[in-house]
Amino acid sequence: MPENNKKLLKGRLNQPISELAEAFNASVSFDQRLALYDIQGSQAHLQMLMEQNIISQEEHAIIKQGLENIQKEIENGNFEWQQHLEDVHMNIEAKLIENIGEVGGKLHTARSRNDQVATDLRLYVREHTTYLLQHIRQCQHNLLDLAEQYHSTIMPGFTHLQIAQPVTFGHHLLAWFHMLQRDYERLSDNQKRTNKSPLGSAALAGSTYNINPQRTAELLGFDGICGNSLDAVSDRDFAIELLNNLSLMMNHLSRICEELILWNSDAFSLVDLPDEFCTGSSIMPQKKNPDIFELIRGKSARVFAASNSLIMLMKSQPLAYNKDNQEDKEPIFDSLDTCLDSLRLFAQILPNLKPKKENMQTMAAKGYSTATDVADYIVKKGIPFRKAYEIVGEIVRLAIEKEKQLHQLTLPQLQSIHSLIEEDIYQHITLEGCVNARKHLGGTAPEQVKKSVQKLRQTIST
Amino acid sequence: MPENNKKLLKGRLNQPISELAEAFNASVSFDQRLALYDIQGSQAHLQMLMEQNIISQEEHAIIKQGLENIQKEIENGNFEWQQHLEDVHMNIEAKLIENIGEVGGKLHTARSRNDQVATDLRLYVREHTTYLLQHIRQCQHNLLDLAEQYHSTIMPGFTHLQIAQPVTFGHHLLAWFHMLQRDYERLSDNQKRTNKSPLGSAALAGSTYNINPQRTAELLGFDGICGNSLDAVSDRDFAIELLNNLSLMMNHLSRICEELILWNSDAFSLVDLPDEFCTGSSIMPQKKNPDIFELIRGKSARVFAASNSLIMLMKSQPLAYNKDNQEDKEPIFDSLDTCLDSLRLFAQILPNLKPKKENMQTMAAKGYSTATDVADYIVKKGIPFRKAYEIVGEIVRLAIEKEKQLHQLTLPQLQSIHSLIEEDIYQHITLEGCVNARKHLGGTAPEQVKKSVQKLRQTIST
Amino acid sequence: MPENNKKLLKGRLNQPISELAEAFNASVSFDQRLALYDIQGSQAHLQMLMEQNIISQEEHAIIKQGLENIQKEIENGNFEWQQHLEDVHMNIEAKLIENIGEVGGKLHTARSRNDQVATDLRLYVREHTTYLLQHIRQCQHNLLDLAEQYHSTIMPGFTHLQIAQPVTFGHHLLAWFHMLQRDYERLSDNQKRTNKSPLGSAALAGSTYNINPQRTAELLGFDGICGNSLDAVSDRDFAIELLNNLSLMMNHLSRICEELILWNSDAFSLVDLPDEFCTGSSIMPQKKNPDIFELIRGKSARVFAASNSLIMLMKSQPLAYNKDNQEDKEPIFDSLDTCLDSLRLFAQILPNLKPKKENMQTMAAKGYSTATDVADYIVKKGIPFRKAYEIVGEIVRLAIEKEKQLHQLTLPQLQSIHSLIEEDIYQHITLEGCVNARKHLGGTAPEQVKKSVQKLRQTIST
Amino acid sequence: MPENNKKLLKGRLNQPISELAEAFNASVSFDQRLALYDIQGSQAHLQMLMEQNIISQEEHAIIKQGLENIQKEIENGNFEWQQHLEDVHMNIEAKLIENIGEVGGKLHTARSRNDQVATDLRLYVREHTTYLLQHIRQCQHNLLDLAEQYHSTIMPGFTHLQIAQPVTFGHHLLAWFHMLQRDYERLSDNQKRTNKSPLGSAALAGSTYNINPQRTAELLGFDGICGNSLDAVSDRDFAIELLNNLSLMMNHLSRICEELILWNSDAFSLVDLPDEFCTGSSIMPQKKNPDIFELIRGKSARVFAASNSLIMLMKSQPLAYNKDNQEDKEPIFDSLDTCLDSLRLFAQILPNLKPKKENMQTMAAKGYSTATDVADYIVKKGIPFRKAYEIVGEIVRLAIEKEKQLHQLTLPQLQSIHSLIEEDIYQHITLEGCVNARKHLGGTAPEQVKKSVQKLRQTIST
Repeated sequence: MPENNKKLLKGRLNQPISELAEAFNASVSFDQRLALYDIQGSQAHLQMLMEQNIISQEEHAIIKQGLENIQKEIENGNFEWQQHLEDVHMNIEAKLIENIGEVGGKLHTARSRNDQVATDLRLYVREHTTYLLQHIRQCQHNLLDLAEQYHSTIMPGFTHLQIAQPVTFGHHLLAWFHMLQRDYERLSDNQKRTNKSPLGSAALAGSTYNINPQRTAELLGFDGICGNSLDAVSDRDFAIELLNNLSLMMNHLSRICEELILWNSDAFSLVDLPDEFCTGSSIMPQKKNPDIFELIRGKSARVFAASNSLIMLMKSQPLAYNKDNQEDKEPIFDSLDTCLDSLRLFAQILPNLKPKKENMQTMAAKGYSTATDVADYIVKKGIPFRKAYEIVGEIVRLAIEKEKQLHQLTLPQLQSIHSLIEEDIYQHITLEGCVNARKHLGGTAPEQVKKSVQKLRQTIST
Repeated sequence: MPENNKKLLKGRLNQPISELAEAFNASVSFDQRLALYDIQGSQAHLQMLMEQNIISQEEHAIIKQGLENIQKEIENGNFEWQQHLEDVHMNIEAKLIENIGEVGGKLHTARSRNDQVATDLRLYVREHTTYLLQHIRQCQHNLLDLAEQYHSTIMPGFTHLQIAQPVTFGHHLLAWFHMLQRDYERLSDNQKRTNKSPLGSAALAGSTYNINPQRTAELLGFDGICGNSLDAVSDRDFAIELLNNLSLMMNHLSRICEELILWNSDAFSLVDLPDEFCTGSSIMPQKKNPDIFELIRGKSARVFAASNSLIMLMKSQPLAYNKDNQEDKEPIFDSLDTCLDSLRLFAQILPNLKPKKENMQTMAAKGYSTATDVADYIVKKGIPFRKAYEIVGEIVRLAIEKEKQLHQLTLPQLQSIHSLIEEDIYQHITLEGCVNARKHLGGTAPEQVKKSVQKLRQTIST
Repeated sequence: MPENNKKLLKGRLNQPISELAEAFNASVSFDQRLALYDIQGSQAHLQMLMEQNIISQEEHAIIKQGLENIQKEIENGNFEWQQHLEDVHMNIEAKLIENIGEVGGKLHTARSRNDQVATDLRLYVREHTTYLLQHIRQCQHNLLDLAEQYHSTIMPGFTHLQIAQPVTFGHHLLAWFHMLQRDYERLSDNQKRTNKSPLGSAALAGSTYNINPQRTAELLGFDGICGNSLDAVSDRDFAIELLNNLSLMMNHLSRICEELILWNSDAFSLVDLPDEFCTGSSIMPQKKNPDIFELIRGKSARVFAASNSLIMLMKSQPLAYNKDNQEDKEPIFDSLDTCLDSLRLFAQILPNLKPKKENMQTMAAKGYSTATDVADYIVKKGIPFRKAYEIVGEIVRLAIEKEKQLHQLTLPQLQSIHSLIEEDIYQHITLEGCVNARKHLGGTAPEQVKKSVQKLRQTIST
Repeated sequence: MPENNKKLLKGRLNQPISELAEAFNASVSFDQRLALYDIQGSQAHLQMLMEQNIISQEEHAIIKQGLENIQKEIENGNFEWQQHLEDVHMNIEAKLIENIGEVGGKLHTARSRNDQVATDLRLYVREHTTYLLQHIRQCQHNLLDLAEQYHSTIMPGFTHLQIAQPVTFGHHLLAWFHMLQRDYERLSDNQKRTNKSPLGSAALAGSTYNINPQRTAELLGFDGICGNSLDAVSDRDFAIELLNNLSLMMNHLSRICEELILWNSDAFSLVDLPDEFCTGSSIMPQKKNPDIFELIRGKSARVFAASNSLIMLMKSQPLAYNKDNQEDKEPIFDSLDTCLDSLRLFAQILPNLKPKKENMQTMAAKGYSTATDVADYIVKKGIPFRKAYEIVGEIVRLAIEKEKQLHQLTLPQLQSIHSLIEEDIYQHITLEGCVNARKHLGGTAPEQVKKSVQKLRQTIST
């Protein structure tokens, strides 16, 4: 612990160079995360070796038990990782041979670290993609509950950050739902490409043993094998695709958090953020800072950068394996952590999100937000849209001059601009009238929001 | 008329925007690329308006003809684009009204530029994605032909850019095929998400007219509608996903070009690149520079940057539409151009690619490339892999000392390292023996390459 | 002649490159921007060749005149650029030979396109950097004028987008000034590295002629020469550094525009943006959209992407020149255009920016923005800061409960929380008192803002 | 330790949400790296508070001693960091108050975490920039030694990765020197902007105390103060500039490593890389993989991504402080570690780098690398360059046909192409003749390399 702290403060500047090269080269400090996936892959490989008579049943039994023992040690936290053994693979193999003797060396028959690490990484990504999908679904469930609850709560809809037209809060929440739905679909598509087995590719050309790569794939729950050994050991597409997808997902969360930060500001004051996700200030005791929301927004940059890192890493690399690829793991691990945490937090935030209904209603009424509806009203009287647009422009200018909202103008005032306007205009330009009228599929009307919620509940339950 | 047109957009703003601001704000210089898609979208919208009795059949007929006439003007290159009309949409609408009178103003009923541009862009991306898929298939066909032709041509396989094991050239070509196959699949998945209609979302909240968004979607060949109006006008996921996929595809081409540049170098000299894709030097007349290959490699940076541009553009944008989004088009257009050109060139290059078989064979024999096979031979004699690995290490050291390749060592020399080695070792360590032995699915053996080609022909023909 | 020209570059390649390859390879469509810089470089090179007796005075005179004639043609827009001649250099040289005969071929003596294009690009970047510096200065002048005008206008200062403490608008404007000042300094430092001459490096190794690279550098106004021919033809650092600096500058503008968009929103309503830089909406005639501001914010992504493009382009490129580098120009041209336009617009916007003083004052009084000052008041009575912090927490809670602002609490109410509070507290917690008290260097006090303006005027005038 | 390992394997998926929010929000796990800089800043602040009579001499003495004690605890590794105290600042302050009582609370007078963390970060960056500069200088010294040693060693110079012209190895090494020299200059310029004090800015507006920010700056060795409190707490330019510079520096190392990897390959075989920086393969015992070089090349992507992360983080952030900024530290720490390690390794690699002189010479003679010199020879006979270029083209075609190198063609053969060629041509086209002739400043001639080394020794010693 002191040693650790000293390193913290003095940096690695005083290390002798050979140690530095060893540390620079070693990956075990981070790739030990792959340990259980490595053993999982090894067990399948071992089973196949026995089935193909490449090793004997006795050897199989001994090695299998050896791997299980190591797995327990790791799970119990008793395994000692050693930097000089470079990576997770060599650490486990060295320990296996230490524990069960020379026979342990047979495990690596017909295999190379190149196909081994590719397999481990795919298993890791596959499992964590499943977690991601579950967490997205949880957020979506919570969004649907909330959208249902607030399906008729009117709030201002913005374009160019200005009040444009009234919408329902439920409708806005469903916009968020759809963003996440695309993330879900993309990650599901991604998973198909992740779930292929590279095992059997060995270093780059395949193996001279009578191996059965399809069997190993089956044992590990892969959908099939990669199909070309050179490609299999050099391919990191599944990971780049993942990070691209996560970057886009975090971009969605950055947009959602931006909205919540805006709405939480004194100026907008449209929502009450749950206290558990905010903090105080060291100098301004009254502040309720939306820290978690700002952090998620900020962390979108981190995941974006991780995806950049990976694609730049692969640029212009000749086949098959180059050591550059060791740099693939940290961005993947870090991005998955960040995204899973962000989704969990978002899922928890949602049920505790409180709209300030009165403020929403008040603000929605501002900014001549019903001007479009006036235009639509006039068009329905037979005036071409572009002409109606000019008429409404005049009405708005009149309202500004009189310091009134549109529905506060008198009928004579309105008729002074255009004679076709009649008493019935007022029912078209209440906030309720405005949102109710947009009742087609995809529109903001409360009844449509309710229908959408029901339909989307089915979508995500199948 | 220009004055009139200016009024079209001015609303209550009383001052003309300065010239620089006008130029900065206008997008027509680049978004005129969307013109035919814009008209396509308008025709479908028009048809729906008539079917829903929002406009009359007469109005429909006049506007339809008006749009067709404009389309012809554009196709013939006679349309005059005007910067002060800002964008492709206003240019076409203003011209329509100029040509057919006030009735032209009815086309924009129940629509906004926000859903209009989103529709245009999706139509553009959809069509160009189809072109991309066709061009990828062409490259893949050419790769399969080439792989079949050279299924038994032996070349060095590299790891860490060093000769590792012999592989077949056909096998290496199939690695490229698989890269492109994943690109094909990703773009196909992407297309599903592109092919949704945002039309009907209007500015952000939907329309008060009795519109039928599903009908417009159907008329335009979309698979369905976007589902939420707020999301529909703000969503650029389909484009970000496209650019991410293209960035990854260009990354593949950058790797392939890197290999071809290496192989074309005097040092490797493994291929003869077709003259048509190389150029001379202004000062060194003997040079045959792989310019096209370097350019494709270089252009991978351009497409990568385009994808960065788009995701950064969207970061933290609150809903629904912000003008920032005008910046989405140029990166999309430029990337599609770049990728389509690169694929076309690659497809043309492939049939003219000539391996230098003799050099490949010679280099494959260097670097103790059959060491793994010696290890495998020893393991099959019953020695654990890790032990065998040590033995081969000694053999290689002996060969280096004697300045021989492995198959040039005498049997007594080999046996001096380990007594289990017998005469039959020599048949395992010829280049042909090495590649033939890797005959499992995904392996480099000529027979396996042939089988793969046949199977993959089926894959891409369905 | 075209045929002749083609031969110029073909060397030993016997087949004409295909049309697509020609178009893909050609750069003249964009590098013609370098034309006048190319001629400038050629004139200096020519002068040096004569001075070193590598060409005769007669040859010099003929070629000089020839170049001048071509320059006029280009300036008048009469020069016909030809794609099959690939780039700006070959277009000009071919025309020169066409016009003055074989002697024109002497211009390229002791030179290669590799050092030629590097020179052209440096001249272009150098000149445009000067424009950038001038435009930044203009913005800064306008900021200082504005800051002076509003040195005592009180507005809310935000942290976490929440009202934190009152500041002066002038102080806020000076924050923007300082951002631009760092941009200015960075670009000036950058310019030192741009302003070195690569001419004389020829293809990569220098020239066998008795050239005088220092003389060419002097003639072109460079500070010196690059120092190593291999490095000189492969170095694009000056351009990457430029794009990095521009990306950061646009990031500043994105932050400033974000603030202006927020302040222009109905919710904040703190400024009145000049009409000339806003536009209307096609469906909501009352809207005043901050389009130019959103575009500048959006274009920060474009310049960021350009900088990514260039650094990725250079990654892992072996020396000396590779064709990838042809891709360096478009991101540079586009970024310079974007930044110069953005700065020009920003400079024009500033004098027309109108703070809504009353709203600023009202909002600054909200959100318990003087809480820190209460804490400071208490500390000055001898209470440690962390303790005072707790006391203020209680006061704020009381104020929230009573629905009062801090200065609206009665003395007995305040004293009920802490007995040391006296009548004089009220003068410390007016908005004016709060800003006036922060009068140290860098603080927000009006008098300090005025002093800063004077000092900064000097800074930028030297 | 077991607990730690479990977390490793199970992820954070099972944490209760409040803990997760706390962990998500806390930065102490990484910002403890700032601990000693935080104390350094506090000591200066404390001294100023006393000098300004804001605290008493007694209070000063007690707090000073308290901070010193905590510093010792941290240096000895005995300090217990607590996550619930969020960050390094609160951990230290809480401990201080725990140790010395309520008076410890006076340290935070006239300060906020916003200016405190900005100060800490600048101190950290400043110190590590100094380390970077030292390490660059070490690399440069080693490069100069090597360049001197091999100033006349001839090797092939490449363009388009093809043999272009002979150069000297010393010259090539000096190209690397110049890359690093620009990095040195950029980081030095950067340092000027880093070395400004934000202390005194408090939360965002400055302090109501009679503080002396210039004095604190002086005590901390800063060149001056930031000049505007709002800007000072929101500015991360110095860090973005640093990461941009480091990204460019790593890009240089990626290019150098690419060259070394190429030269180390069996195909090129131009250098012998030191064993200590290479590793073996688990399946191919004979391999000597350039792992460290590939890792440095790969890590250029990591540092590039860090710079992207930071600039995206700041995009569109309104002033003054937002929690997003907490994400600034990890990319900075990680990039500095990576770059310092890479430079240290590179410095150690250089003295052990062995050129394979014979192979260099042999390869330099291939590829008609003296063609330019033939052209120059002919031009000196009075033929215009472009004409000479055509003549050399014919000579090269003849040589290819005869399967000879240029100097192996007989005089009659040469004269059959052009009659002006005479016996003296042979002395111009030996490799030695070629490099010796390029003796101008910046050229590849051995004598010029030697001169350059001497001049550059002076440059870096001042």
